[in-house]
Amino acid sequence: MNWFDALNKVRIILCRPSHPGNVGSVARAMKNMGLKKLYLIQPKDFPSHISDANAAGALDILQNAVVTDSLDLGLEGTVFAVGTSCRRRSLTPEKLTCRDAIGRVAREFYGEGDVALVFGNERNGLSIEELGKCHVLATIPSSDAYSSLNLSHAVQIFCYEIFQLKNTLGRQPFLEKNFGHHEDVELCLRKFENVMKGSGFLKPGAEGKVMERLQRLFRRTRIEKEEIDILLGFLKTIR
Amino acid sequence: MNWFDALNKVRIILCRPSHPGNVGSVARAMKNMGLKKLYLIQPKDFPSHISDANAAGALDILQNAVVTDSLDLGLEGTVFAVGTSCRRRSLTPEKLTCRDAIGRVAREFYGEGDVALVFGNERNGLSIEELGKCHVLATIPSSDAYSSLNLSHAVQIFCYEIFQLKNTLGRQPFLEKNFGHHEDVELCLRKFENVMKGSGFLKPGAEGKVMERLQRLFRRTRIEKEEIDILLGFLKTIR
Repeated sequence: MNWFDALNKVRIILCRPSHPGNVGSVARAMKNMGLKKLYLIQPKDFPSHISDANAAGALDILQNAVVTDSLDLGLEGTVFAVGTSCRRRSLTPEKLTCRDAIGRVAREFYGEGDVALVFGNERNGLSIEELGKCHVLATIPSSDAYSSLNLSHAVQIFCYEIFQLKNTLGRQPFLEKNFGHHEDVELCLRKFENVMKGSGFLKPGAEGKVMERLQRLFRRTRIEKEEIDILLGFLKTIR
Repeated sequence: MNWFDALNKVRIILCRPSHPGNVGSVARAMKNMGLKKLYLIQPKDFPSHISDANAAGALDILQNAVVTDSLDLGLEGTVFAVGTSCRRRSLTPEKLTCRDAIGRVAREFYGEGDVALVFGNERNGLSIEELGKCHVLATIPSSDAYSSLNLSHAVQIFCYEIFQLKNTLGRQPFLEKNFGHHEDVELCLRKFENVMKGSGFLKPGAEGKVMERLQRLFRRTRIEKEEIDILLGFLKTIR
């Protein structure tokens, strides 16, 4: 595994960023740490000359940024997503520190598919729905007195921790699992939902809680492609 | 050693910052990581409503910031200073990564006196003179393609690394040395210079290189108070 190939597996995804200055500062923070793939989900103001100014020498990152309408589209082709948040949720994925989460990311460098670091809106963070699409939740340890970091500063710390992996590359355990891509997992979840509705197990209007838990289970297990095929085949046989 | 006492030993010193937005963002980055002591050496534009806006919930850090005309004043009462730079110098203090430098800072938590992280101007970094007053030079590992981090983002990473020490506090080797404060070391250097000039060893106009090396030696050895007293006493006897 080449170091540059590893870095090119990492996507920084910003969900609904509202300040163009932050988007530019994120681009600079990424390029400082050798990252290139920026995804913007419903950015409020992009492109913008304010983003360009803050990006400084990282204009190419902004110019190549992928802008989409949904996090699902931004996650297509990924096999592992780290959600970032300082808010506490009742039903969240496994919680890790930033450093430990990046340690998990390192293991993905040897597998197939991209890895995503997903950041929420400046004011509200990630929604429950967005967080549900992530495998782990990572937080940056910070002062209880004032724990809210500026978005681009939070991205800077995560990118810095990724760059620190450079020295340990090649010493990580090899991951040979063939994990399902995000879009395959989503498809499987939707099929389950349909069948569970059809069978009467899921009452209309009350499917939220069950599907949330099912989703959480699927992300936690890192379901593999072959397992998804088995489940899809099984679900197809149910009428 | 109490964790909050440890954090209160750390000064963030910005030399000649030119953008008020950066000063505000630095205040926020500090408060996020529990740091309080901000020193501004010849800030170009301070106070400023732009600083205030970027500080967000960290206005108190700005209001309590110490503004001085010289780095020497900002370093009074410190026993250890980490200079930060991405520029290479011919004659610099020991070079460390950010993480290793903060490891050194941790050892100071058990001694007497403050510790300083010294950051240079946005465009030019620290001057040779400023760097000469630091004990080690720390750099943030970054991409060769674009290694220049925004000032406040660099401060954020250093503050983050300090906050990471929380978990190891109490497990550091105890430092019982009674190190000379910055101002005592400076005094000793000036006395040396005077005596060396008086003896004819230092030719007028050619003292720069010798004094630079002497300064480097003094910082590297972490000269103690008693040793300074011995040297001062000795120098006093020379006519």
